[in-house]
Amino acid sequence: MSTLIQAVQPADAAAMNAARTRQTQLTKPAGALGDLEELAVRLAGVFGTDRPHPRGVAVIVAAGDHGVAADGVSAYPAEVTPAMVANFLADTPAGPGGAAVNALARTVGARVYVMDAGVNADLPKHPALVRAARRRGTRNLRIEAAMTREETEALILAGAALARQAIANGADLLIPGEMGIGNTTPAAALTARLLGLDAAEVTGRGTGVDDDRLSHKVNVIREALARTDASDPLEVLAEFGGFEIAAMLGVMLQAAALRRAVILDGFVEGSAALVGVALAPALRDYLFPAGECAEAGHAAQLEFLNLSPMFRLGLRLGEGTGGVLAAPLLLSAAATLREMRTFAEAGIPT
Amino acid sequence: MSTLIQAVQPADAAAMNAARTRQTQLTKPAGALGDLEELAVRLAGVFGTDRPHPRGVAVIVAAGDHGVAADGVSAYPAEVTPAMVANFLADTPAGPGGAAVNALARTVGARVYVMDAGVNADLPKHPALVRAARRRGTRNLRIEAAMTREETEALILAGAALARQAIANGADLLIPGEMGIGNTTPAAALTARLLGLDAAEVTGRGTGVDDDRLSHKVNVIREALARTDASDPLEVLAEFGGFEIAAMLGVMLQAAALRRAVILDGFVEGSAALVGVALAPALRDYLFPAGECAEAGHAAQLEFLNLSPMFRLGLRLGEGTGGVLAAPLLLSAAATLREMRTFAEAGIPT
Repeated sequence: MSTLIQAVQPADAAAMNAARTRQTQLTKPAGALGDLEELAVRLAGVFGTDRPHPRGVAVIVAAGDHGVAADGVSAYPAEVTPAMVANFLADTPAGPGGAAVNALARTVGARVYVMDAGVNADLPKHPALVRAARRRGTRNLRIEAAMTREETEALILAGAALARQAIANGADLLIPGEMGIGNTTPAAALTARLLGLDAAEVTGRGTGVDDDRLSHKVNVIREALARTDASDPLEVLAEFGGFEIAAMLGVMLQAAALRRAVILDGFVEGSAALVGVALAPALRDYLFPAGECAEAGHAAQLEFLNLSPMFRLGLRLGEGTGGVLAAPLLLSAAATLREMRTFAEAGIPT
Repeated sequence: MSTLIQAVQPADAAAMNAARTRQTQLTKPAGALGDLEELAVRLAGVFGTDRPHPRGVAVIVAAGDHGVAADGVSAYPAEVTPAMVANFLADTPAGPGGAAVNALARTVGARVYVMDAGVNADLPKHPALVRAARRRGTRNLRIEAAMTREETEALILAGAALARQAIANGADLLIPGEMGIGNTTPAAALTARLLGLDAAEVTGRGTGVDDDRLSHKVNVIREALARTDASDPLEVLAEFGGFEIAAMLGVMLQAAALRRAVILDGFVEGSAALVGVALAPALRDYLFPAGECAEAGHAAQLEFLNLSPMFRLGLRLGEGTGGVLAAPLLLSAAATLREMRTFAEAGIPT
């Protein structure tokens, strides 16, 4: 664990400076590519060159269940988690997987990895399902610690191992994604504790709870926050969960340690990132937020990370869907640095 | 011309309704894909099916010069227009074209078509350059009509012909793009006249003029607006120009007439779209704005069209670059309708 954390080193400042210089020489008015220019510079820092060439895109969808779902914090029953895992793996006429993330990934050429991080069901055997579960769902974070410290570290390392596999298979852009009925509740608890905010400021409707259930959800999160004064990042993660959040944290740390870019999807992914930057501040250099999601605490996460999203399409699905949509934007940003001619090469006086 | 205009018919309302129904059945919480859902519904309307399957993407970059450039309305000399046309066509290690649009198009698999719509130079022969110029640059719109009515119609038809060629080659998403030093000046004049706004409300810095030149540019546009009270859409287009704007209008009308989607890039493209919806109101159904660009009048155009952009990356380059960046988002939106399983198919109770 400490080896993984220490392996996350800051982005390459020299490559970023070289990329900034190169931006001024490319055949376009200064700044005309808008935010794409800074994205390209940040990619130069990640990949250590002013001509970054990310190729493969991988989305790692970690699924887990949450003891707190028994408290009625979600609009959906927990049985949806295993059903969606089966959906991620289903044979369909279009190819493997019938969920949104599968359809989007096929469109942009991203590979989908599916991990059972701790689903509360006897999942059918499937060759493409990565089995990393230590327990069928977390304990109820309102009442007790959601995960043991050992479970927490095991899932982080499982996420890291799957990230290494994806990278070995060619992934340069990694998208941690998640599925887990109830998981905006631990995400809100993590965000509130790590950013020092009140539960109401970071709690949203998840997949669509109504007003009554939203105020119930806020109360559940307040109880959880009152139950423990944990502040150590790994301890906070263990207290609130969940297994898929720990796995996504492992994906992020390993991707950064191997100098790959991480596309940061929504609010649950953001809560893993907050734990990550608390453990390894340089992780921030590798994070590229996709869209600002509709969940209340997401903007607070991005503000803390001092990172801007690439779009605002109002997604609130999870699964890594926003990350997959953002992948072509990052590939395009890198391509401008790599493939555009300079004014000198084009013979255009400046 | 009137045949082309009359061929633009409204989107298929039955297919849109079927797509809306299908959205409620797909394996995701209602509305969880945010704006992507309405984009998918609109694509269903364009392609006349609740399972739209757009495939090829084409960007048609029309280049033209502007007599008004002699008035110093741009930060760049007019010589940049032919140099950039050469850049669009240049052999580079990465493939044909060394401009931003080429790098982005290669990344997303879009084909680039380059048209000389009226560049003020003796362009070198190149097999990939579509020659449609009737004149080397427009007349100065401050002093006189930029184009004759005959030139205007000829360029619209040339754009339509190239769109037909791109569609015959497999394009389902068409992106009109442009290059023309000075062309935010006619775009601002068109926008001001067609929306009834003051020049100052729709005039921006283009490729980057300073405060003095911006106020000079506003004055030039005011003079042009005062010179003519033209209100007929084609007459307005002829008065202010330019050749590449007319060509883009032709691309848009032909794409819509053949029921293909048009991705609408920035401010200059938007001015062509305003002429288009004035001629054929149903054109709006086929327009998908990419990003909100930094140019002042762009927001006014989108508000008039009652269409929301997909992102806000602050692009202000033109060339169709924003449109190319948006293409994967539209392909993804269509894929969700086509490839996601329903709750019933996935055996998930609702």
